[in-house]
Amino acid sequence: MSEAVSIPEAAALLLEQKRILILTHERPDGDAIGSSFGMREFLRQCCGCEAEVVLPAPPPERYQELIGEYKTTLTPEEVAQYDLILLLDCANCERIACGPAVDPVSLPELSRPPMLNVDHHKGNNVNARWNVVMPQIAAASQLAAEIAMAMKRPLPERAATFWLLGIVTDTGAFRFSNTLSNTLRVTADLLDCGANLECVVNAAYYSKPLNQQKFEAELLETQEKLAFDGRYIYAYIPDELFAKYDFDMRDGEGVIDLLREVAGTKIAALYYRKGDCFKVSLRSKDQRYPVGPLARGLGGGGHDMAAGITLRGMDQKQVEALLLEKVAAVLGEREED
Amino acid sequence: MSEAVSIPEAAALLLEQKRILILTHERPDGDAIGSSFGMREFLRQCCGCEAEVVLPAPPPERYQELIGEYKTTLTPEEVAQYDLILLLDCANCERIACGPAVDPVSLPELSRPPMLNVDHHKGNNVNARWNVVMPQIAAASQLAAEIAMAMKRPLPERAATFWLLGIVTDTGAFRFSNTLSNTLRVTADLLDCGANLECVVNAAYYSKPLNQQKFEAELLETQEKLAFDGRYIYAYIPDELFAKYDFDMRDGEGVIDLLREVAGTKIAALYYRKGDCFKVSLRSKDQRYPVGPLARGLGGGGHDMAAGITLRGMDQKQVEALLLEKVAAVLGEREED
Repeated sequence: MSEAVSIPEAAALLLEQKRILILTHERPDGDAIGSSFGMREFLRQCCGCEAEVVLPAPPPERYQELIGEYKTTLTPEEVAQYDLILLLDCANCERIACGPAVDPVSLPELSRPPMLNVDHHKGNNVNARWNVVMPQIAAASQLAAEIAMAMKRPLPERAATFWLLGIVTDTGAFRFSNTLSNTLRVTADLLDCGANLECVVNAAYYSKPLNQQKFEAELLETQEKLAFDGRYIYAYIPDELFAKYDFDMRDGEGVIDLLREVAGTKIAALYYRKGDCFKVSLRSKDQRYPVGPLARGLGGGGHDMAAGITLRGMDQKQVEALLLEKVAAVLGEREED
Repeated sequence: MSEAVSIPEAAALLLEQKRILILTHERPDGDAIGSSFGMREFLRQCCGCEAEVVLPAPPPERYQELIGEYKTTLTPEEVAQYDLILLLDCANCERIACGPAVDPVSLPELSRPPMLNVDHHKGNNVNARWNVVMPQIAAASQLAAEIAMAMKRPLPERAATFWLLGIVTDTGAFRFSNTLSNTLRVTADLLDCGANLECVVNAAYYSKPLNQQKFEAELLETQEKLAFDGRYIYAYIPDELFAKYDFDMRDGEGVIDLLREVAGTKIAALYYRKGDCFKVSLRSKDQRYPVGPLARGLGGGGHDMAAGITLRGMDQKQVEALLLEKVAAVLGEREED
């Protein structure tokens, strides 16, 4: 049985639990980290819960100081000892970061512990026991903050700072179209609770390692390409460029923004080889040309304005050609409106 | 006679006028443009005023589409025909952009028309007839919006969009330390009035000409220097680099942010030759190391976290050495606290 619940209902559910296991998606970004660790702090400090976050792989370097300690492994026996699994910011079971000993797909189906799925991705198909899936909310961290605020307890500064991190990173510092007036009002409330904007911004925006800056400068110099009268901008990152600057895309959340900042572009794509497949990131700058449907059509996922795909069985030239064809359709179809 | 007035008093003053001349600072940035044109739209549409903005030099290309038409020249005779001069976002008389036919220093002293000076710069020394100078407010555009809201009339979408532009650019998209909860709440109100965030962000952040991106990439590759264990980062822009990419600092509001984004840096400086002097921009990432006093000590101005100086009678090496010495003092003094 799977049921949609409201924010106050989710708050009431959390208040009934003693031991809560917090999980999020693999390759955690600012919002995955912010929503999870913010909830951990809040549940521990304000609800008297035992709450743990599991991250089997280390998060981006820039967030490590902020995070502190966390659980890195998980066994099925440990899972069974919790009262509730709180899944945050994760749209698909396959993407749940739980380590090799636990089957992620089995987790939402457990009756003991049951799962509460809190997310803001349109295509969320986790089907947990309880689900708060609100695609109109900018960040899972905003949802987490709203659930906590529904409990009418003062928010700890540290929890507010984590949720601020998630909102700031998922809205691109309030620049993406998911920024609504309620996003700003929740953020204002977090600042009033003592959320540390300087610390968040320094971690998210002003902690670029020098090697990354040089990597990006060379990428823009040598790999950037424009098509369709400059409306599509894209770049392929060759393996050699990663090697030259010792750069890992685990720290590359913001690289695609460099492409879309170019004047006149509508859609940006960045892709690179990972093992035997290609990882593709897509961004739109114009609501008339959403990239979400394009990504989902190729087995990927995400939002209208920000999406991703993993492509297999192709070489680099084929990926480039496939993206050119699909982007042309998005830009062309809509032009005839 | 010069008098400080409150936001509601400024609103009442504006409501008494028929013809209002709106002026701002030379080399207008997003906040100068946003505060001025937002007020023009509001006064015309909601107060039945004749209101004009004067910009003697063209504003940055990226804002031109948003702005539409404006007045480019001004004579003393024309000035005398207005009921009020509304000066926005301008800290010093010398910086008022009024064209060659009018002496900017004489403007605040006129009794006919009198001047209302609305600004958020700490060192504002305009001493107009009436002054609303509030350094704790993030942007002159926020102040303008608050004055308009005090009139309790619905804000036109276009005015709200202009003020959003000023707030977004002066807070670096809500990343700078001037971002307070009231900044976000006023911005939320502007979004509720129909302010177009996509249009503002595309103009301010996603309208970088390709030549600027290539200019920046080469600047970072070749000119970036670190000192004091990486806590100070700076770059000199040689004349040849401007020439190679046909780039003008009129469009370079965000270039210094590329320096401060590097991990571990506390203070960033960018400087370049302009005629017979050097223009220096300074930024701090840490409230313990403000750059405002440093700038004022060298005849410049600005805020604690963002300031600027014009230096004369030095060559490039002397500017570099002077800045190294002054920055060392800021970083060193405070370290002994």
